[in-house]
Amino acid sequence: MAPVSTGEDLHESIQSALERRFADRAGLAEAYGEEFTRLWRLAARHAIGGKLLRPALLIDVHAALTAESGAVLPRPVVIELAASIELLHYAFLLHDDVIDGDLTRRRTPNLIGALREAHPRSRGADETALHWGRSGALLLGDLLLSAVHQSFARIDVDRERRLRLLDLLDHTITETVAGEYTDVALSDGVVPPDLQTILAMTAQKTATYSFELPLRVAVILAGAPAPVEAALTAAGRHLGLAFQLQDDLLSVFGDPDEHGKDPYSDLREGKETVIIAYARMTHAWPSIEPWFGDGNLSESEAESMRRDLSACGAEEFARNLVDEQLTAAYQVLAEAESPDGVPADARQALFTLAQRIEGRRS
Amino acid sequence: MAPVSTGEDLHESIQSALERRFADRAGLAEAYGEEFTRLWRLAARHAIGGKLLRPALLIDVHAALTAESGAVLPRPVVIELAASIELLHYAFLLHDDVIDGDLTRRRTPNLIGALREAHPRSRGADETALHWGRSGALLLGDLLLSAVHQSFARIDVDRERRLRLLDLLDHTITETVAGEYTDVALSDGVVPPDLQTILAMTAQKTATYSFELPLRVAVILAGAPAPVEAALTAAGRHLGLAFQLQDDLLSVFGDPDEHGKDPYSDLREGKETVIIAYARMTHAWPSIEPWFGDGNLSESEAESMRRDLSACGAEEFARNLVDEQLTAAYQVLAEAESPDGVPADARQALFTLAQRIEGRRS
Repeated sequence: MAPVSTGEDLHESIQSALERRFADRAGLAEAYGEEFTRLWRLAARHAIGGKLLRPALLIDVHAALTAESGAVLPRPVVIELAASIELLHYAFLLHDDVIDGDLTRRRTPNLIGALREAHPRSRGADETALHWGRSGALLLGDLLLSAVHQSFARIDVDRERRLRLLDLLDHTITETVAGEYTDVALSDGVVPPDLQTILAMTAQKTATYSFELPLRVAVILAGAPAPVEAALTAAGRHLGLAFQLQDDLLSVFGDPDEHGKDPYSDLREGKETVIIAYARMTHAWPSIEPWFGDGNLSESEAESMRRDLSACGAEEFARNLVDEQLTAAYQVLAEAESPDGVPADARQALFTLAQRIEGRRS
Repeated sequence: MAPVSTGEDLHESIQSALERRFADRAGLAEAYGEEFTRLWRLAARHAIGGKLLRPALLIDVHAALTAESGAVLPRPVVIELAASIELLHYAFLLHDDVIDGDLTRRRTPNLIGALREAHPRSRGADETALHWGRSGALLLGDLLLSAVHQSFARIDVDRERRLRLLDLLDHTITETVAGEYTDVALSDGVVPPDLQTILAMTAQKTATYSFELPLRVAVILAGAPAPVEAALTAAGRHLGLAFQLQDDLLSVFGDPDEHGKDPYSDLREGKETVIIAYARMTHAWPSIEPWFGDGNLSESEAESMRRDLSACGAEEFARNLVDEQLTAAYQVLAEAESPDGVPADARQALFTLAQRIEGRRS
């Protein structure tokens, strides 16, 4: 999905901020040997080049919030925090991949896979190479998580706003990790896969850092009033949940040539989504269950599972949830329309985002 | 090894600061379900109760540095950072255990082992329970790393000192992770196990955060001059290296009933230490190599290896290195004796520490 903002200049600014930060870190790493430097350079190649949805959301909404007041911070300050949110995203992806044992992302090797293949002795052929890849991803995730905190801690704003930003980052990380832990608890059979647990986990794991965080950073930097923060936080949660549910739908029902993911990887991994939670409650489950989580699922077995998941109503149920969340987001934004509410440009940016989530195919 | 300070009161203050922080976090965790709360409570039991060597070093040296100037910060500020350094230590231990696949520490289950045994379905009996344990340790490490940054970012000192503390934390984490990455590179056969690499790795992985960090935080908080920071940093590096080399010696040549570690675990895990690096260069290596890294090494095989490592001179070599590092620390401290140098009480604290490292048996 393309970011909200289509400004070429904006995309390039964030991109160069990210490139600069990785280059600085790779420079510092040289004091610790070739392998550590290589890790940073390799990570830069994997982390940079994404759609920058999260940074663009922050910057667009911040611009809208400050358009009238003119209370504009120096552009580099805003770009710095926007780039940090992209780093946080990548840090979470890395640790998520370590936990899930994933070696690819969008059908190419992720950092773990790339390190594994580059293992000098075995070139990915044994457990040692896998250990090398996983350890590198774990440690680089730690460094990126630290870099994000450093950015938030050093941001050149007044003390009150700095502490609010730090509170927000703390809350965001706690909630995202709690969501991830519940996700692990679901796959390891520690908590039962009921719908409420899965919905809460989905919001915590994705909506909080991907949508609420950039919107609330924009609010704090702009000094917008509390009702605006409340409206944007609520809208962010609904949009974030819709975004992730749409993602879950794409993985099972989408066209792999369009979305670029490994087709049916969620079904093969046994990922507990709302689609599965709904299917569990239907008469179709006994015929779906034997295949769910089978790593060797063939293309035709997966297609048959997909038909069953559609026929039992799970697809429609999930699509309705997406619609509900989008409608709730529209409503929050409509209610926030007032002279002191969310400015028209910010609402427009979120409407556009909602429409893209609605018609999302990639 | 006991901490430098024997003040009962000090130990209790740090202990309660740690307990309070874990209790606060467990309280916040309740909003995210029972499992997440349980993770924090379990982690508190594992993290609290250590010897608090690092916090005590910070507090003792800070007290010595401020005794004359009277430039004393509120005690809670100092205790807060001291407790954070203990949290950083535990975060590193957790991720180290994930990387090494360790399930015990000091002959009892570590957090991974405890989570694994508590897995509701399999009680540690299968891969799923192990995955549950490792994922919990990884995620809790992320949360503790974040908590450390939050403490440093919020500390109530002037902007200049706050930025110096943040720079120091950034440097410390980068260097420790770089050392850990080199340690992984050594065990996975990515870099050759030569003596220089192992010594640099040892200093980076242990001396930087365990000795340099508490000493430099004490300096920054006390506003001590640059030559004092330089002297304490150098002394910290020498003491930290001596401490870790002594630890490596204990694991192979020490009395397990005294040091409490799993006897010979370093030999079974194939840990690349200076002892091994030296042995590799001797005629004895061909008779040692077949056993090195054998997870099923018997007690008598390990004892025979220990005799070979001693006979070939590796033990003496490592003991000499410890002496050299301690002598270097004494010398740095002796040279720093001047009216504007390191105060007598701070030097005394470090002399005491050096003597304990020298005679260390646990």
